[in-house]
Amino acid sequence: MKKLYTLAIISGLLLFACSPKEEAIKEPAVTYLSSWNDGATKRAIMDFVTKTTTEGSADFIPVADRIATFDNDGNLWAEQPVYFQLLFAIDQIKTMAPEHPEWKNEQPYKALLEGDIKAALAGGEKALLQIVMTTHGGMSNDEFAASVKNWIDTATHPKTGKHYNEMIYQPMVELLEYLRAHDFKTFIVSGGGVDFMRVWVEEAYGIPPYQVVGSSNKARFEVAEDGSTSVVKLQELNFIDDKEGKPVGIYQHIGQRPVFASGNSDGDYQMLQWTTTAKGYPRFGLLLHHTDAEREWAYDRESHIGQLNKGLDDAQKFGWTVIDMKNDWKKVFPFDE
Amino acid sequence: MKKLYTLAIISGLLLFACSPKEEAIKEPAVTYLSSWNDGATKRAIMDFVTKTTTEGSADFIPVADRIATFDNDGNLWAEQPVYFQLLFAIDQIKTMAPEHPEWKNEQPYKALLEGDIKAALAGGEKALLQIVMTTHGGMSNDEFAASVKNWIDTATHPKTGKHYNEMIYQPMVELLEYLRAHDFKTFIVSGGGVDFMRVWVEEAYGIPPYQVVGSSNKARFEVAEDGSTSVVKLQELNFIDDKEGKPVGIYQHIGQRPVFASGNSDGDYQMLQWTTTAKGYPRFGLLLHHTDAEREWAYDRESHIGQLNKGLDDAQKFGWTVIDMKNDWKKVFPFDE
Repeated sequence: MKKLYTLAIISGLLLFACSPKEEAIKEPAVTYLSSWNDGATKRAIMDFVTKTTTEGSADFIPVADRIATFDNDGNLWAEQPVYFQLLFAIDQIKTMAPEHPEWKNEQPYKALLEGDIKAALAGGEKALLQIVMTTHGGMSNDEFAASVKNWIDTATHPKTGKHYNEMIYQPMVELLEYLRAHDFKTFIVSGGGVDFMRVWVEEAYGIPPYQVVGSSNKARFEVAEDGSTSVVKLQELNFIDDKEGKPVGIYQHIGQRPVFASGNSDGDYQMLQWTTTAKGYPRFGLLLHHTDAEREWAYDRESHIGQLNKGLDDAQKFGWTVIDMKNDWKKVFPFDE
Repeated sequence: MKKLYTLAIISGLLLFACSPKEEAIKEPAVTYLSSWNDGATKRAIMDFVTKTTTEGSADFIPVADRIATFDNDGNLWAEQPVYFQLLFAIDQIKTMAPEHPEWKNEQPYKALLEGDIKAALAGGEKALLQIVMTTHGGMSNDEFAASVKNWIDTATHPKTGKHYNEMIYQPMVELLEYLRAHDFKTFIVSGGGVDFMRVWVEEAYGIPPYQVVGSSNKARFEVAEDGSTSVVKLQELNFIDDKEGKPVGIYQHIGQRPVFASGNSDGDYQMLQWTTTAKGYPRFGLLLHHTDAEREWAYDRESHIGQLNKGLDDAQKFGWTVIDMKNDWKKVFPFDE
């Protein structure tokens, strides 16, 4: 009897010694979505993921087709008072100004250098494009990446005083992790510049550069006299990854229709529409509604940026789940209490 | 003594019961590159992978930067007598002909329908583009994918009688597997149509659709009256992923300079050049030289397709490794003895 007892203990110890590793592989001891309040939104997300990833479920989606796409501005990180990439461009204009004395008398540069963003943007799309092309073209991709990295490391937000890559939404980072833990591939699909994002998104969201789809300049391969090579960004638009451009960008880059799409503005409407009107598997459309004036910003239908109008009108028709930021999220930013 | 002995046996059994799983995670019991003959080429590949993936090595490359790019035509699958995608386009012309009676009198269609490929291509690039646009545009991406899948499943090669996706190079498939087992991400970077390849490459090479870079048409998002949505391929070129286009395509799609690049023609020259002239990590350039007239085809400098001229001239200068197909490969196709 005592012998059996000893055996049992030793067997138990041995099993204990090797079981944690195996368990860790099957299901990590992590609580997902911990910054989400319990409620209909969190439940809808978890129900979708559970039913589409449970073997034998009628709604099962094979791993190869688990494609999830996320807008970035106002969806994974904040976008107020204006798109952060525009703030980067403005800072670049200031940095470049000493080499361009002519800008003192030339719009939109003059207004920008005088700190009047509103006047600078009075020139509409043309002025905006000029600012972006001046700061995002005419240099090698390595030089551009270095300038973005420097800005991300040093610049801070006018309201929070935080670095911009700290102003990411903690619940969305957890949603990305939750999906990846269930073998979804997570992609960014943003109107923002693809190579602006690629510099910092892997660290912020765990999304590698090649899973980022965005707007882009044309580029050219160049060989220098010393034999060194580079890809140079031209001051010419290549692709605008916004609105009806998002399904096209996804098609060209990913080559598959997503089963899960997440956005926050009418720029994401067509991406969600394309995703959730597909035949076959169940699909999930997710809209982030900025309802939290205290911890973040409250805006939707009349906003000068990140306008959400058509999306709110049609969410019910398409069966999209709407996140109410104020009520659905325990915290907004990682630095929140 | 007997008790200890029993314990030892039980302990052994328990350890045995849980150890195989753990070992399988560390290092699968697979012999890589088994279709490669031992020799300088195989050794160069293995030396590079070993030194760049061994922790503590001066040449160590972090996992996030292990990007490997592969040309497709003549590099992962065969390309003689002409690019297989052109054979697909010709078959499509024949399928579409009953709806286009005017083709009987219109080049290049007339010549194609009469089986005279040479005459059809006498119109040069313009004729080729016309054939490709007629068969690769003006339909939804789903319709196009279905036509490619049908062709891959049914069409056979005029010389071997095999399906085209059987005419892949077994040693290259093993090289892809070997790199992935060492945490390299493997991408296709081809002058061929990106959505032509995406239909069948995952099954053939284990490369998912979103890791395929290629030439493309422009596309448009469309909503039908019944609310269904599609991305439609237009009869307009978007991007040619060949020659100096390859570094640009890699930059736009992957966003990182590869550390390993593999090709077989002068269309791959700039991709290898951009890869192996980079600073920092060690890099590897690999050229496949078609030297095997018996098991495959022998061609290089004067070939009408897959011409390799500049690459052979400059391989030594850039330190590229050249595969001699006849001597380096034990077998060419998976169906070879």
